Amino acid sequence: MSTEQKWVYNFGGGTSDGDASMKNLLGGKGANLAEMASLGLPVPPGFTITTELCTLYYENDRSWPKGLNKMVDQALAKIGEVVGKKFGETANPLLVSVRSGARASMPGMMDTVLNLGLNDETVAGLAKLSGDERFAYDSYRRFIQMYSDVVLGVSHHNFEEILDTYKEENDHILDTDLKAADWKKVITAYKQEVEGHLGKPFPQDVREQLRGAIDAVFGSWRNDRANTYRRLHNIPESWGTAVNVQAMVFGNMGESSATGVAFTRDPSTGENAYYGEFLINAQGEDVVAGIRTPQPLTIKAKKAMGETSPSLEEAMAETYQELIAVFQKLEKHYRDMQDIEFTIQQGKLWMLQTRSGKRTAKAALKIAVDMCDEGLISEEDAVMRVEPGSLDQLLHPSLDPDAPRDQLTKGLPASPGAASGMVVFNSDEAERLAQDGYKVILVRVETSPEDIHGMHAAKGIVTARGGMTSHAAVVARGMGRPCVCGAGDLRIEKDGSAFTVAGRSVAKGEQITVDGSSGQVFFGEVKTVQPELSGDFAKVMIWADKCRRMGVRANAETPLDAQTARDFGAEGIGLCRTEHMFFDPERIVAVREMILADSRADREVALAKLLPMQRSDFKELFEVMSGLPVTVRLLDPPLHEFLPHSDSEIEEVAKSSGIDAGKLKLRAHNLQESNPMLGHRGCRLGVTYPEIYEMQARAIIEAACEVSASGAPVTPEIMIPLVAQQKELSFLKERVIAVAKAVFAEKGMSLDYMIGTMIELPRAALTADEIAVDAEFFSFGTNDLTQTTFGLSRDDAGTFLPDYIRQGILERDPFVTLDPDGVGALVEMAVEKGRKTRPDIKLGICGEHGGDPDSIRFVENAGLDYVSCSPYRVPIARLAAAQSALAILKK
Amino acid sequence: MSTEQKWVYNFGGGTSDGDASMKNLLGGKGANLAEMASLGLPVPPGFTITTELCTLYYENDRSWPKGLNKMVDQALAKIGEVVGKKFGETANPLLVSVRSGARASMPGMMDTVLNLGLNDETVAGLAKLSGDERFAYDSYRRFIQMYSDVVLGVSHHNFEEILDTYKEENDHILDTDLKAADWKKVITAYKQEVEGHLGKPFPQDVREQLRGAIDAVFGSWRNDRANTYRRLHNIPESWGTAVNVQAMVFGNMGESSATGVAFTRDPSTGENAYYGEFLINAQGEDVVAGIRTPQPLTIKAKKAMGETSPSLEEAMAETYQELIAVFQKLEKHYRDMQDIEFTIQQGKLWMLQTRSGKRTAKAALKIAVDMCDEGLISEEDAVMRVEPGSLDQLLHPSLDPDAPRDQLTKGLPASPGAASGMVVFNSDEAERLAQDGYKVILVRVETSPEDIHGMHAAKGIVTARGGMTSHAAVVARGMGRPCVCGAGDLRIEKDGSAFTVAGRSVAKGEQITVDGSSGQVFFGEVKTVQPELSGDFAKVMIWADKCRRMGVRANAETPLDAQTARDFGAEGIGLCRTEHMFFDPERIVAVREMILADSRADREVALAKLLPMQRSDFKELFEVMSGLPVTVRLLDPPLHEFLPHSDSEIEEVAKSSGIDAGKLKLRAHNLQESNPMLGHRGCRLGVTYPEIYEMQARAIIEAACEVSASGAPVTPEIMIPLVAQQKELSFLKERVIAVAKAVFAEKGMSLDYMIGTMIELPRAALTADEIAVDAEFFSFGTNDLTQTTFGLSRDDAGTFLPDYIRQGILERDPFVTLDPDGVGALVEMAVEKGRKTRPDIKLGICGEHGGDPDSIRFVENAGLDYVSCSPYRVPIARLAAAQSALAILKK
Repeated sequence: MSTEQKWVYNFGGGTSDGDASMKNLLGGKGANLAEMASLGLPVPPGFTITTELCTLYYENDRSWPKGLNKMVDQALAKIGEVVGKKFGETANPLLVSVRSGARASMPGMMDTVLNLGLNDETVAGLAKLSGDERFAYDSYRRFIQMYSDVVLGVSHHNFEEILDTYKEENDHILDTDLKAADWKKVITAYKQEVEGHLGKPFPQDVREQLRGAIDAVFGSWRNDRANTYRRLHNIPESWGTAVNVQAMVFGNMGESSATGVAFTRDPSTGENAYYGEFLINAQGEDVVAGIRTPQPLTIKAKKAMGETSPSLEEAMAETYQELIAVFQKLEKHYRDMQDIEFTIQQGKLWMLQTRSGKRTAKAALKIAVDMCDEGLISEEDAVMRVEPGSLDQLLHPSLDPDAPRDQLTKGLPASPGAASGMVVFNSDEAERLAQDGYKVILVRVETSPEDIHGMHAAKGIVTARGGMTSHAAVVARGMGRPCVCGAGDLRIEKDGSAFTVAGRSVAKGEQITVDGSSGQVFFGEVKTVQPELSGDFAKVMIWADKCRRMGVRANAETPLDAQTARDFGAEGIGLCRTEHMFFDPERIVAVREMILADSRADREVALAKLLPMQRSDFKELFEVMSGLPVTVRLLDPPLHEFLPHSDSEIEEVAKSSGIDAGKLKLRAHNLQESNPMLGHRGCRLGVTYPEIYEMQARAIIEAACEVSASGAPVTPEIMIPLVAQQKELSFLKERVIAVAKAVFAEKGMSLDYMIGTMIELPRAALTADEIAVDAEFFSFGTNDLTQTTFGLSRDDAGTFLPDYIRQGILERDPFVTLDPDGVGALVEMAVEKGRKTRPDIKLGICGEHGGDPDSIRFVENAGLDYVSCSPYRVPIARLAAAQSALAILKK
Repeated sequence: MSTEQKWVYNFGGGTSDGDASMKNLLGGKGANLAEMASLGLPVPPGFTITTELCTLYYENDRSWPKGLNKMVDQALAKIGEVVGKKFGETANPLLVSVRSGARASMPGMMDTVLNLGLNDETVAGLAKLSGDERFAYDSYRRFIQMYSDVVLGVSHHNFEEILDTYKEENDHILDTDLKAADWKKVITAYKQEVEGHLGKPFPQDVREQLRGAIDAVFGSWRNDRANTYRRLHNIPESWGTAVNVQAMVFGNMGESSATGVAFTRDPSTGENAYYGEFLINAQGEDVVAGIRTPQPLTIKAKKAMGETSPSLEEAMAETYQELIAVFQKLEKHYRDMQDIEFTIQQGKLWMLQTRSGKRTAKAALKIAVDMCDEGLISEEDAVMRVEPGSLDQLLHPSLDPDAPRDQLTKGLPASPGAASGMVVFNSDEAERLAQDGYKVILVRVETSPEDIHGMHAAKGIVTARGGMTSHAAVVARGMGRPCVCGAGDLRIEKDGSAFTVAGRSVAKGEQITVDGSSGQVFFGEVKTVQPELSGDFAKVMIWADKCRRMGVRANAETPLDAQTARDFGAEGIGLCRTEHMFFDPERIVAVREMILADSRADREVALAKLLPMQRSDFKELFEVMSGLPVTVRLLDPPLHEFLPHSDSEIEEVAKSSGIDAGKLKLRAHNLQESNPMLGHRGCRLGVTYPEIYEMQARAIIEAACEVSASGAPVTPEIMIPLVAQQKELSFLKERVIAVAKAVFAEKGMSLDYMIGTMIELPRAALTADEIAVDAEFFSFGTNDLTQTTFGLSRDDAGTFLPDYIRQGILERDPFVTLDPDGVGALVEMAVEKGRKTRPDIKLGICGEHGGDPDSIRFVENAGLDYVSCSPYRVPIARLAAAQSALAILKK
């Protein structure tokens, strides 16, 4: 035996073969049971079959390797010694539970069998031993049902039907109405049912039972639910599950027995107070089932909840104290808030599980800060304890959990936060009403860049179409507006008078409430509560900033967004999209005039009108960002985005702006593109119409000069988009430099500025060494880089991505989390090549990924200098960047 | 001096410092002059200032390095010694020419100065020495004009005006009417003009003259013309130009003087016969100017041309024999047909230039074969001597050069060959008329996949819009149909009755002629001549195939195209685009039925109708390609390409097919995409609708089985398009294998087939190691790979690519010649990664680049196994592949 591998690890009876560090081998549950047993805590003895054996099991075509049988027998014998019982012995039978337990928690995904070891003989022994015949036969029928369902493939519906029929025929209503004699009859019927299905009787051999249950748990690692869960949570199939076989303890052995769950601190608020509930004379499943109302653990909680039934502190004072001692021991040991399962069997406390407890963002912050104050963990540990993405909950208003609500529909939670307002279907109207002081919710089939002003004016946005990365979603997140996208059952009436959803009609002007965090849309106004950025939040942020290597900037165009970003701790602007400034009603006229110009001279006349407007935009922005760097991207979208499209829109624009409708139509037609994403945009506009970029460069440099006179200057970083080749950049850089020189000469002053480029095309990444000759900085535009690397249009992917997710072909939406193997490889390549040419090149990311914690981890590893994200994600990025830096230090 | 670099190389007088191998240092002209002088040929002595000095000159801010002055003086003295004259000596002045000469020929791009060394004094010496005062003063005035224009920046227009005025005032008509006295007066006026412009007199110091001329030639390396030429011909600026200073010889010193140009073989036919022309008593510029008609060299040529003026063979029999001896010597020496310039000065032959002569494709083939037969060159040399792209001229019918013609318009030469036929504006009509035996030319604004049948039925195609890589161009080249694209001034009447161009109207049914090789469109029928694939062509192809490493396949769908390809030597099909088979009128109905199906079951009904049609398509194709591999790409384009778009088309289709118009419209609307290129297409269709790919796989395997029974089987290679990740391929591969197994079981037989993928997305290239786990072959789809790598839509690039070319940002259209740095880097990466996973993976290219010689060279270097191109480019690819393989051997 000594040369064989160890596949079975015992725990309990004061010793353990394993410990908490062995999660990969023993699974989370098994490792923690071993750890608790080593700590001397009262853990029912048992053993864990390793995850390695699971892998071997599958490699061996689902069969047991030689030697495993013997190891299991020896381990069973050891349990028997500890508890003084014997597996399969009629007089004093050992009963066991068989549970799965993978490296990562997969709640409810895999199978469990309880009360194993019961058969027609041992059940009689159990009855005698417990002195409770009803308990014994109830346990046996539960076992037959569970085992048949899980191991033998006879669905539990069959047994539920038998039980229902029996109760009906015998005028019983509740299970508790059945006595031992009743259960015996039910058991006979159950066994007949099994034999009817399988053509052979329910197994009476307890070893056969155990073997079947272990096989079933291993098998459940690859059941559909588990496969799906793994896919959704990125858990590799190769990890496998462990199997935990453990002596049964019973919380349903009378009034001195109980079962419960507890958290060592409040998982909702983080308060340092025991939190949990229990049921007397019950099994774990009864707590979950919710038939009886569980009682609180402590007197304090009981009072707070206005409960009348006694708390555990009162009902079982001694055991309660024992439990508290366990809590304290575990928290000190694990240095984290614990989520615990326990059972009290006839006055004796047994610990069934411990693990780090899930918690709200608010609780995570408080627990981290408190534990740091208590000296339990370091500041760095505290930073690592808060899930960056969870902060989103704290940064936006949310629905008052107590407020009544009337749900209309549910779409995608596209931009978090909650808001109420009157329904408006048109962006101009939204803006008008907002100016008049109304709160409005913009409801659209989908949004386009022409809706920017309406979205800005609205308190919230709802669209019928589009996904998490649709225009509406991206812009709303950028603006911090709550947004629900892709509410597919919502139909807007053609005349724009109302929308209907599931048969209900909501008219223009009626109140609705949008919850962008859940994707729900409610009728009427639902009360909201404002976010509280508590002292804990601020403390953790300060600690995070100490650990952070990368800078965090924001993507912002308006002074308001910039101010929000700065308040959230942004250290500059990483992406100012100048075209967003072009949609202002006053400006769009001049923009269209420029687009319709027949000659460079005419275009320059129109550009001259835009210059003072752009300059004042930049001045406002630079004032807000005083002392910080601001990256301004020159015009990026294709020109047709600024023109009306439908005939009626064209007529309207022509009428209101005095432009000839025919000319407008012709130009709009000529500018149409088959693939606008790959068309005449970005620096390609700059090459065709250098005067546009020259105007923008002039506006930037003039604004910087004027602002620098009155305070700490900004460093403008002029960014040329969509560069595919060095020559594009050098051609345009030359022109920008000439403009800057001219402005400096006119103003008799000078200031620092930089010229760089987006890396958003594969070719730019592949030739980054050449591009870095001219670029003083790179900003990775990972939205477009993902589109081109995958050959995947963000706007069109919605039609087939669901199939991809369903088939398991795509694990994560690459527009949400940066694809490390394709897009990431290009980023790494560009970083290496860029630094080779220009060692001090500044490197950042300004795609949507800049606010995604997993992507931030990737770019920390890739060695970028900063991330830039929407203002409301700045705190998330600060925390994620800190965690990523710490993770590297720990490597 | 010995420690200094050598910047000046002498030649002439029987010796040379340089030779023909030193082109990089001495330029083409300088190296060949040195070589000829070494061979003992009569070359006027001179010297070459190196290209290195040119680079140094620019680095030194356009100034001469120390020591150069002295080297030039010494070299001048050497020339003087040889010719017995002295530079600047009044009595016996040495006159020189100063000419540019870069590594690559840049005809007419840079500057030249002749007759340098003349001033008010030396001109008198020249008059005396030559005994021809008129000649001397004519030379001087020519020199002043040329020098002032080139060196002093006083435009030649000024001098032409003075001369015109002088002639007018003195009633002269021709230059030859002017006598020495006249020229003296003109010279006085010229010198005044120069002084008026510059404020100082025309330089009389001959050393100053020389220095100025050398500076001017170096300077002309970076003039606008030269910059543009270099950009267009991919000549690096860093190469620099050499400067050749050479003793003047004069072909205009009376009746025993002459000047001429010659080819050692006929550059048009390749015939081994001297070919050239000369003028008695003339300078080189007079031959070019075309004022006098030059005379032929030989009696034979004179007879053939029906000329009356004497040939050189008659007029100067002795010198002619001397020249013939030079020809023979040069051809033997250079082992290639030479293009020669010579001057005869008072009976003495002087060689001014030799270089390999440009020639037609036909001539290139004949010369290569003849020289090989003559033992002058090897078969491999012969293969290297023919420009692959030039073969295009030989593979298509061409206009009879003698036929009269009436040009209507000119567009882009999109697909070579010439054809006549009646004008038709509609593809259905084109097909109908063709079936009735009419020859038609399809004229469209642009074509779409729905025009395939019309294009196939037509003899030629004209479009008003679209570039060299538009749909029409690509498909026409594939089909071998002559095509003119982007005839921008062509307007089709709305009612489809006629087109107008430059005010002329051509009605439906009238005859026009398309010359796809020149881009011209003519009114009426112009006689064409059929291509002759002469014995020379066949011989060179056989030699090429011996040298070739890569296979050459064709992109073809129809049996006709496949047969053409096979006749041209294709070794299989590298790309069969199954969707082209879907546009057949009979099939499109079933295709649309499939697209409109509401359920998988309905879709399968429609697919069942398509199955026998697809199977019979493949059977026909496999029969033609018997014994060879055939790569079949499963459905690639987005489904909306198969649906009608405009309301009227929808109505029409609905009426003719019995499909509900509303449903059709709704589906077409729902399938619309923002960026179809990046949308729901390729394997994404396969993932969403696996049944489509399953039907296609079944059709392929069934066809292969049925055909294999009756002859040499094909190896079907099933190709999954647009793969971005391994999982897509493995998902679909599994389904294809299942279908193949099922077919084999049904048929009771089996055959070899392969499953592979296109590499046409950057992510596929970046993760090729993973994809190769499932792919048995890669075919590089470089059209789409170029689109995604550059982020550039082929359909939309037309609006801004001209700006890119004009600004020198883009040197070559990346859709024509593979971009080595971006797209090429991805190809190399994928090759390496693919082979790492699967050493025997089969690698090919099937994008348009597969028929482009430069791209073929790239993929030869990258180690691909085969190229695949349109049938008419197969011979080009064979030759290019052979040359690429030889080039590698020679490295």
